[in-house]
Amino acid sequence: MTPPSNAFDRLAALVASKGPVCLGFDPRVDQAPKEFLPASSKAADAARSIVGFFDAILDAATPFVSAVKLQAAFFERHLAPGFEAFVACCRAARERGLFVVADVKRGDIGTTSEAYAEAYLSKVDDLPPLADVVTVNPYLGSDGIDPFVEAAKKNGGGIFALVKTSNPSSRELQDLRVDGRSIAERVALALNERSKATAGTNGYGVAGSVVGATHPEELGAFRKLAPHSWFLLPGYGAQGAGPEDVVAAFDAKGLGAIVAASRSLTYPWGKGAAPSTWRADVAEAARRMRDEIRAAVAGRAR
Amino acid sequence: MTPPSNAFDRLAALVASKGPVCLGFDPRVDQAPKEFLPASSKAADAARSIVGFFDAILDAATPFVSAVKLQAAFFERHLAPGFEAFVACCRAARERGLFVVADVKRGDIGTTSEAYAEAYLSKVDDLPPLADVVTVNPYLGSDGIDPFVEAAKKNGGGIFALVKTSNPSSRELQDLRVDGRSIAERVALALNERSKATAGTNGYGVAGSVVGATHPEELGAFRKLAPHSWFLLPGYGAQGAGPEDVVAAFDAKGLGAIVAASRSLTYPWGKGAAPSTWRADVAEAARRMRDEIRAAVAGRAR
Repeated sequence: MTPPSNAFDRLAALVASKGPVCLGFDPRVDQAPKEFLPASSKAADAARSIVGFFDAILDAATPFVSAVKLQAAFFERHLAPGFEAFVACCRAARERGLFVVADVKRGDIGTTSEAYAEAYLSKVDDLPPLADVVTVNPYLGSDGIDPFVEAAKKNGGGIFALVKTSNPSSRELQDLRVDGRSIAERVALALNERSKATAGTNGYGVAGSVVGATHPEELGAFRKLAPHSWFLLPGYGAQGAGPEDVVAAFDAKGLGAIVAASRSLTYPWGKGAAPSTWRADVAEAARRMRDEIRAAVAGRAR
Repeated sequence: MTPPSNAFDRLAALVASKGPVCLGFDPRVDQAPKEFLPASSKAADAARSIVGFFDAILDAATPFVSAVKLQAAFFERHLAPGFEAFVACCRAARERGLFVVADVKRGDIGTTSEAYAEAYLSKVDDLPPLADVVTVNPYLGSDGIDPFVEAAKKNGGGIFALVKTSNPSSRELQDLRVDGRSIAERVALALNERSKATAGTNGYGVAGSVVGATHPEELGAFRKLAPHSWFLLPGYGAQGAGPEDVVAAFDAKGLGAIVAASRSLTYPWGKGAAPSTWRADVAEAARRMRDEIRAAVAGRAR
């Protein structure tokens, strides 16, 4: 079967069957389970540790998550071997049928944005694209967003652009209001316009938004403002948001959002050594998060 | 001699002796001179082409430029081999005593920003940092900037955060005004505060600003607003700015700014095949740009 060309239709099908959890992977090699601790402090050993650990996480969590979000920074810190691990982890997740978010938050202009988009959304060396969706920073305006949107349209991919991030200082710039509209709302509207023009079967187009789950009072307002943009919600779990906080991001069919958690799913044992039950703990953390959110969304619908 | 721990003091010494040109390298492999055209369309061949071409550019241009700015996107599009080429090019430029700007425009929060900062500003595998300065996107607020500032302080490095970019749509967000101050001015002030607290011999601290040379009418205002931030000025040459447009960014000693040009310095023959004189053309383009700007800055000072 040819996959639908709209990335968010593919995501919708996954969410309908497996729920709205997006497993975030921010690999911290010193916190890996014993069998995946790197053999040395060399970048190449760190990279091997990351790929092995991620594969084991996928074994455990794949039944309960629709998407994975790979945080490029924790790969890049290991330079070229780290970047190679990023590529390997993206491919491993796509081979398992998961929806892959390359969390790279790139932002530049013109042909530079095109080059970034090509890296994550296009075929390279005749291999399929690394990711279904790439995260994008909107500070440079349309010139920074549109090359990604064009690449997404061409390749059946998508973007999640930063609208309102989950961190406390997001208010410094994103909440500033001009003529009654915050910066974040302006970005959300610009993305929604591009999504409306490219909407698929479920009403969602290529340009999604990142809206932090740590701002539950705003989520519903963003949902109304941008009905054609799928939302990626970071901030769940370790950053404090719970199931009731994310409900307003979902549409009446329970679609339109995925909820990302990283530490609470991939290091559910906290900062100490991993217990021998860690694989089951990873699976259980993903299953519980999925069930909690499903129940909250279903409860709202009644 | 131990290099000064303030990155912008190092840069000032270079600018005083070699002028304010920053050679931007945005490698487009299909436009390389014949001897550096890749053997195939494979990423590994593209990476080899890039490293060889850059080395030849450095042979030609090093006498006339103080800094190089490597645009990560044009490396990342070739995935892991491309990233390895990025690392190799950064190291090659630092070995020649050039000031290296890793133009990655990263922006994230907390430990994620720390991981990015580590990649570009810290030792990895006991090798020196890849870059003197890394470019940063400020959309996430202080949470996104301060981890880079801390890493810069610790490693004798610096940042250039995006303030007002050279592209037309920069106005959509960066020019919006709240309480009499534009978003770009607010970012410039936040950076200047961090630079004031870390100012070196020449008055410049760790947090520099990117201010497009395509906005000459604003440059002087930003210079007054942020006297402790070194400026990186993109937009010269191919994007339209000339020597008179950048003068206002320099302080009375002719310091405080570097001017970046990419296509006009590294592909001075335009889009066609490179002429046999291309090495001399690259050297001449760099020398001419340096002399033009020096003359304009000296003319202003009289």
